[in-house]
Amino acid sequence: MIIIGEKINSTLKAIRPAMESRDKAAIQDLARRQVEAGATFIDVNAGMFYDNEIEILEWLIDSIQEITTAPLAIDSPNARAMLAGLKANRNGKPILNSITGEKERFESVLPLVLEYGTGVIGLCMDDRGMPETTAERVEIAETLIRNLTREGVAPGDIYIDPMIRPIGTGSHYGIVAIETMRAVKAAHPDVHIACGLSNVSFGIPARKVINQAFLIAAMTCGMDGAILDPLDRKLMTFLYAGEALLGLDEFCMNYIEKFQEGLLEV
Amino acid sequence: MIIIGEKINSTLKAIRPAMESRDKAAIQDLARRQVEAGATFIDVNAGMFYDNEIEILEWLIDSIQEITTAPLAIDSPNARAMLAGLKANRNGKPILNSITGEKERFESVLPLVLEYGTGVIGLCMDDRGMPETTAERVEIAETLIRNLTREGVAPGDIYIDPMIRPIGTGSHYGIVAIETMRAVKAAHPDVHIACGLSNVSFGIPARKVINQAFLIAAMTCGMDGAILDPLDRKLMTFLYAGEALLGLDEFCMNYIEKFQEGLLEV
Repeated sequence: MIIIGEKINSTLKAIRPAMESRDKAAIQDLARRQVEAGATFIDVNAGMFYDNEIEILEWLIDSIQEITTAPLAIDSPNARAMLAGLKANRNGKPILNSITGEKERFESVLPLVLEYGTGVIGLCMDDRGMPETTAERVEIAETLIRNLTREGVAPGDIYIDPMIRPIGTGSHYGIVAIETMRAVKAAHPDVHIACGLSNVSFGIPARKVINQAFLIAAMTCGMDGAILDPLDRKLMTFLYAGEALLGLDEFCMNYIEKFQEGLLEV
Repeated sequence: MIIIGEKINSTLKAIRPAMESRDKAAIQDLARRQVEAGATFIDVNAGMFYDNEIEILEWLIDSIQEITTAPLAIDSPNARAMLAGLKANRNGKPILNSITGEKERFESVLPLVLEYGTGVIGLCMDDRGMPETTAERVEIAETLIRNLTREGVAPGDIYIDPMIRPIGTGSHYGIVAIETMRAVKAAHPDVHIACGLSNVSFGIPARKVINQAFLIAAMTCGMDGAILDPLDRKLMTFLYAGEALLGLDEFCMNYIEKFQEGLLEV
């Protein structure tokens, strides 16, 4: 599994003060701990700072790169901020988080993907808004993949996010998300499926169990990447269990090793 | 989900003394608690008592029927014991656990299914032994379904068990089990898929997490029944979470209700 560590994100209230006060040690600590816990990419988002997103994003990237060489997921709705992030990046091939099927966003992010040779997360939405059905999501994913690969982006650099909606607001949204994953992965085995997990359980009590179950359901349907908190030991325990169940961990050696190291939360 | 409560089973060491000493209160307590915890069927197995299986099975069934009307899963490798169980049964339509593709077993259990109008669990094995691949398992399931329905058994009375093998002995066994489920359910939507869970994690540490993850993976692939311990609150929490995720629990009302009743283990 490709793990995109989600902790350094200005939408998370707990971390925002460290960004406001430029607390470099706090940011570096979060980056280091995510890498140690298994993050493949470190997501970096300063999008909540409307007035100085670019300045803070550059500072975050500089701070993180002082203590780790893990690649970044440069996370912004704003192509100008993405460009600044790409210029600041020195940690190998990053992911841009994210592109969509919206014409303006697609056209502003695509040149960055091509010029900097990045990976890119493609959200299943377009100018018609957030799609309701599996078929609509698959169609948007197909269009994104077609338009990206036609421009020269390799399938393995595309990460499709089906955009899960809370099951508390519609009982079919879980099925819609995992069936979208299954269809896209079946048609495009080299394209990654990567998804934020926690939205699925928004508004439901005991939501961590829902998130753990969704991680397993999605992995079973072809999700090979996840935007998650790698410091959540219980969630990571399920991630290792999912890998063991799905034949991605030979003879369960990694699961057993993590158990022996005391890293599983049972 | 159809829940077959597995606790009254002579292969479980903890319960065997209560069977040997005919401790009716202990058996009735286990039956009552399983029903209260959500069991659809109560599995009854006295197969470890080679000399007096029939006598103990009859006693178990009589004891259970004094305190609940929940239907039984009459669990024996021995058709004579199944017949005795069926004669003792007064709790509505039972399941026979189990038939296989083995010629002798199929021919001895089929008449009981037909005469008593029971449900039946069909294990994916035949006279060639335990199959290795998904294709072999699906073939055995198809043969079982064809031969049972040809004799007049309704698809909805058939419960296919893919027979999961421990992933610690072969990394592909998890995939084999869930892909068998997916293929059988896709071809036969009215046939149930029911499976014992715990074998998957045999020999692995922290095996409960593997079982919880397998429950979710299997539900995602069409499993609609499980042979499990309904008194395992954590496992049941995942079962409810799986139902909520897969659109089987409208607006997550059951999940939320179980939370409010303090029945979820988070």
